[in-house]
Amino acid sequence: MSFQSLEGIQSLALVGATGIVGREFLSILNDNRIKIPRLKLLASELSVGSTLEVAETELYVEELNEASFDGVEAAFFSAPANVTREYVPRAVEAGAIVVDDSSCFRLERGVPLIIPEINGALLKDFEGRIISTPNCAATPIAMALKPLQERYGIRRVVATTFQSVSGAGRKAVDELSAQTAALLNGKTSPTEVFPHRIAFNCLPLIGPALDNGDSDEETKVVKELRKILELPSLLVSATCVRVPTFCGHGVSLNVELMKEPDTLDVVSELLDSFAGVRVVDKPSGGIYATNVEASGGDDVFVSRIRRDYSLSNGLNMWVMTDNLRKGAALNALQILDTLYTYRRMS
Amino acid sequence: MSFQSLEGIQSLALVGATGIVGREFLSILNDNRIKIPRLKLLASELSVGSTLEVAETELYVEELNEASFDGVEAAFFSAPANVTREYVPRAVEAGAIVVDDSSCFRLERGVPLIIPEINGALLKDFEGRIISTPNCAATPIAMALKPLQERYGIRRVVATTFQSVSGAGRKAVDELSAQTAALLNGKTSPTEVFPHRIAFNCLPLIGPALDNGDSDEETKVVKELRKILELPSLLVSATCVRVPTFCGHGVSLNVELMKEPDTLDVVSELLDSFAGVRVVDKPSGGIYATNVEASGGDDVFVSRIRRDYSLSNGLNMWVMTDNLRKGAALNALQILDTLYTYRRMS
Repeated sequence: MSFQSLEGIQSLALVGATGIVGREFLSILNDNRIKIPRLKLLASELSVGSTLEVAETELYVEELNEASFDGVEAAFFSAPANVTREYVPRAVEAGAIVVDDSSCFRLERGVPLIIPEINGALLKDFEGRIISTPNCAATPIAMALKPLQERYGIRRVVATTFQSVSGAGRKAVDELSAQTAALLNGKTSPTEVFPHRIAFNCLPLIGPALDNGDSDEETKVVKELRKILELPSLLVSATCVRVPTFCGHGVSLNVELMKEPDTLDVVSELLDSFAGVRVVDKPSGGIYATNVEASGGDDVFVSRIRRDYSLSNGLNMWVMTDNLRKGAALNALQILDTLYTYRRMS
Repeated sequence: MSFQSLEGIQSLALVGATGIVGREFLSILNDNRIKIPRLKLLASELSVGSTLEVAETELYVEELNEASFDGVEAAFFSAPANVTREYVPRAVEAGAIVVDDSSCFRLERGVPLIIPEINGALLKDFEGRIISTPNCAATPIAMALKPLQERYGIRRVVATTFQSVSGAGRKAVDELSAQTAALLNGKTSPTEVFPHRIAFNCLPLIGPALDNGDSDEETKVVKELRKILELPSLLVSATCVRVPTFCGHGVSLNVELMKEPDTLDVVSELLDSFAGVRVVDKPSGGIYATNVEASGGDDVFVSRIRRDYSLSNGLNMWVMTDNLRKGAALNALQILDTLYTYRRMS
């Protein structure tokens, strides 16, 4: 992946620098040798004074406060909702452009919800100050649907997710480790982040349950897909499940197209030629994407592409991506890169 | 659970006694203090000479051979396909009635595929010799669908499974343990049972892939559901995924009914009043079934019952059961009990 325009950023604030997405953001900067002259690592009081390595330099983590955004050109927020709601407006007031990973602004009018390969063009001549990056489960689904939407149209989607604990943050990762180790040693370890044991256990509810029975996470997936794909009445049923894996969100995706798809070879080619999507699909040879393949990578993998014969225009797919990268930090960096590419061109 | 008629069996052979389902079968006999005068534990050469405790007595495991079924009244087979194909006919020749856990005979005409709560009545006046118990993923789905089928009719089902490693046998359980322990210690452990690492990883293919792209497991789910529910043209799309859990198969079930369902309270009551099904569904209080609740229990749990508003008559549910019990050994014992109840009555 190239980020040719990111080096046009003179100063960038990273809010939530010590969190799991913040660290992934820095790791992508490091891996791609992207140098940003003034990089400000911001976090809550608890992390202040710790250091993180960026471009072979140790940077101190600073406390997020009212003055944090003075002279800052762009900010990436990966922070809890209360922090986001308080400090995004301050960053905007200070003149920064904000890319936000929270759900706070995603559905607001005037806030583009961007996956660059799908709707990055919305950033051309963009004059707003806040851009949202989508929910980590919505992103891989949107990526797999977009090429199908363009060619065949989409009538209805039934999605069931297999979401890793890293989607719930660093403490969730620690909880899965600690509980798993304890159980293998015949002991128990406390349940704090999740409402039930997560080790060797699937939890069929992510986020609070709403009055209609859907979870908060399922509602995000449905509403964000509609916004990203610009299909406000797209029929979507989502079921979001937390599984005991560290990294990678999988999705079992059942799609009813508007018209009959071509052969599976053509569909496979169509998906694989969409930027950011990679088809890995030779099930008879044991070849399909699992969490292991996806973790640390940039692509949205699509496997198990097959006709669903219970519909005239049905397709099934297994979709898998690194939830911290394309599902969060990588997509945010791509958003910034796209924005600065348009700015450079104009 | 009561097994009032099982004690009418004078002699029972258990083929695959040392396997994971065989052991669960014995554990249910023990827990329910069911005494069968002549119980024969049969296994492959490798296990011969080992002992298993049944009704406070140590029983020797005998080698399965041509003479194994002499004088045996009933046999439960939980064995690999080649063993099943060779020895079930011998058991039948010897005059035994066979309950088989494999997929070898499930779809054969004249072989009832039984979940007693659903179609146990097929065993009344049954004069055949082979009865099959369904696939461990098909069983919970059928149990959740049956009461809905009776009241509303079913048009189409989209099912995605979360299947535990115990469904693949004892070595699969050992592989998940060993790989998990190794990874937590920064080491690796071989991958032998599964085609890829299973620790902290989801594998979106169970069993071989067929020419149409479906897996063997998915095909079983579709065909067996149609037979069990006596709906030969039921529209079903299944996706079967192996997840890193030891026990319990979960299913994300999307159902299109023939007519509009009643309120969710009524649907919940309808499901909960079906024998063998238990509704556990207060998501706002964090109450839903996970592998932990299901493991070691007899019920098929249904949680997250909600309308799917992408359809006029749509419902979503999360279904979870112990794959070794209701998915295999318990259901087999219920089949025998049902059969002997009918025999006693006639």
